[in-house]
Amino acid sequence: MLTVIKFGGSSVSDAAKIDNAARIAKDIYEKGEEVVIVVSAQGDMTDVLKSKSTEICASPDVRELDALLSTGEEISVSLMAMKLISLGIPAVSLCGWQAGILTGGEHGSAKIKRIFTERLETELAKGRVPVVAGFQGIDEKEDITTIGRGGSDTTAAALAAALSADLCVIYTDVAGVLSADPDDVPEAKLNKEIGYGEMLEMAASGAGVLHDRSVQIAEKNRLKLKVASSFEKGGGTLVTDTEIEGNCVYGVTRDCNAALLTASGGAPGEMLAALSEKGVKADMITCFGETVCFAVPETQAESAERVLKEVLGNGAKASADKSVSKLSLVGCGLSGEPDIPARFFSRLEKEGVPVFLISSGEIRISALIPEKDAVKAVKAIHGEFFGKRE
Amino acid sequence: MLTVIKFGGSSVSDAAKIDNAARIAKDIYEKGEEVVIVVSAQGDMTDVLKSKSTEICASPDVRELDALLSTGEEISVSLMAMKLISLGIPAVSLCGWQAGILTGGEHGSAKIKRIFTERLETELAKGRVPVVAGFQGIDEKEDITTIGRGGSDTTAAALAAALSADLCVIYTDVAGVLSADPDDVPEAKLNKEIGYGEMLEMAASGAGVLHDRSVQIAEKNRLKLKVASSFEKGGGTLVTDTEIEGNCVYGVTRDCNAALLTASGGAPGEMLAALSEKGVKADMITCFGETVCFAVPETQAESAERVLKEVLGNGAKASADKSVSKLSLVGCGLSGEPDIPARFFSRLEKEGVPVFLISSGEIRISALIPEKDAVKAVKAIHGEFFGKRE
Repeated sequence: MLTVIKFGGSSVSDAAKIDNAARIAKDIYEKGEEVVIVVSAQGDMTDVLKSKSTEICASPDVRELDALLSTGEEISVSLMAMKLISLGIPAVSLCGWQAGILTGGEHGSAKIKRIFTERLETELAKGRVPVVAGFQGIDEKEDITTIGRGGSDTTAAALAAALSADLCVIYTDVAGVLSADPDDVPEAKLNKEIGYGEMLEMAASGAGVLHDRSVQIAEKNRLKLKVASSFEKGGGTLVTDTEIEGNCVYGVTRDCNAALLTASGGAPGEMLAALSEKGVKADMITCFGETVCFAVPETQAESAERVLKEVLGNGAKASADKSVSKLSLVGCGLSGEPDIPARFFSRLEKEGVPVFLISSGEIRISALIPEKDAVKAVKAIHGEFFGKRE
Repeated sequence: MLTVIKFGGSSVSDAAKIDNAARIAKDIYEKGEEVVIVVSAQGDMTDVLKSKSTEICASPDVRELDALLSTGEEISVSLMAMKLISLGIPAVSLCGWQAGILTGGEHGSAKIKRIFTERLETELAKGRVPVVAGFQGIDEKEDITTIGRGGSDTTAAALAAALSADLCVIYTDVAGVLSADPDDVPEAKLNKEIGYGEMLEMAASGAGVLHDRSVQIAEKNRLKLKVASSFEKGGGTLVTDTEIEGNCVYGVTRDCNAALLTASGGAPGEMLAALSEKGVKADMITCFGETVCFAVPETQAESAERVLKEVLGNGAKASADKSVSKLSLVGCGLSGEPDIPARFFSRLEKEGVPVFLISSGEIRISALIPEKDAVKAVKAIHGEFFGKRE
């Protein structure tokens, strides 16, 4: 049995947390299992390194920024390996290049192309625990790259796939995939299992617990992926392709990084092509006669508005409203059960929450609502589908 | 013309100092010369990293400590390369492994075995400035190693030798090789040139400006090595094999890390063999009848005493006196000019400084004197040979 486990920055932010994480690995190792550990940079180390670079110049060279940021994970892996060795576990830290992680050359957002597993397999065969730096690799020129958002989760899933691991566990500071953010809804429930597609929708709709790239890798490779707390024993959520009978609601999410874009005087296809070319991600695309609406990330609202004005020319209108949030209900078989969308929208009406834009599919129902009503709406929808706290 | 330049930790300790160092490199590059830069870790970064490791465990694994400490230089090289790129100089940072630096596997004190210069030569051929992490390499297992004391100076000299550079400049925070420590003797004079052997004696006798390993590499490869200030233009000391006519005095040094070891009841050879086996460096070996005296580093005094008591057995005596300092005068042709040792010892007598042990050779005269008299003695001997401040 081979397990790949990953610890995020909050799980290794100081010596006591590293000790805690190392003991989790030790417990697995001492059951006779093979273990590979992936570690992120400690706490705010990546921000500390970034601020060092902006002291040097306003827009640092991307190759050099990758070389700089990669040191954050290299610090973590050596500290974690030291701790394990001091606990009597034969560990060996490996940077991205030592672990054979080959990526493309897109600095800051490189894709993992291949993992040359020889070194990892040699270490495992010697009974050692490889501790691999997440978030980094090298390209074909032997330059250091970083793999962008979701970095270490992606590294863990990719290593698990390359090594045909039996399980990949992402340790984090929450209990698993909950039915809502516990800051919004204290009675949020833990999902014991969730399908890959539903997990992808949860991640894309604002649940920060697991990055979508790692879920995609897991789905593609039929990998068992688990999210669990590094501070509480037991529990956790298994992401898998397990078939669950009938419909099932997994959670409610809200995403504040949303804006409503309304445009008229042009063809939707032309608008979407122009936005896509500029890297703007449009979602919840809807047409009402001449008017086209969609949701874009709030951080891209201004550039989206500008792009549309350029492409549509005189007489056309385009405006962005950043005062909205995206409320989503994620589950499986949602549209096959007309009762669910009906209850979703009726409950919002009952709460007096206006809905500006709707999209609904098999595993997600989303609504753009006023940002000021978002927390109230999450509480209400969670209460509707998961019941009140006992 | 190819120049290898090295900046120590105090020359890159913050963004302003990195800017200053980068402009020195830029000036050389813009004269049309090829430049390779070697950089140490910023300021106290190595100590910060070391303290991270001791928070994890009291005696960290040596392989992991090397992996941890190597990140200090990796941070510096990427910052330096960013700065150069922002100044319009095409720079490229390289870790030890990227620069092809192969070492032995003795973690913490690895020897550089070979430098595979392909990557460096490719970058130079493209008109780029490689910025190489000092102090680190990899061994044949592809594990990260550090090369111990004098690390980055040694890396610079080794790179200069491997690339057949025309010059290797060690930039530091002092003006060059002075005739005494300016903290002791404010009127200390700058040596414009010094021979390899004399520089080695200066380094071995307590002048901290340049590490002996780099001087040894320079001598072996007939490399022009220069020590200069990164904060003042001009000046500097050239270390070379230039023949200097007649005798010449380069400087006075004191080394507080010295202890006087006195032993009797055994054969000197047997004693020295036992010390050598335990890694104790004995210097100034002298016999008076049954009694053998020598200088050892103060940090090794207790273990040296213990080793001698063990090897000599009952009836023998061995004692260490740590209240001494080693005062040295370094020059060339010293013993060929009997006037020089005469003036050295007469002046100490005149100052009332007792001398416990003497050694004298072609390029160095040393005396063990009371530690409390050391600064007074440096001032007096400097005044004797270099004159008073005008």
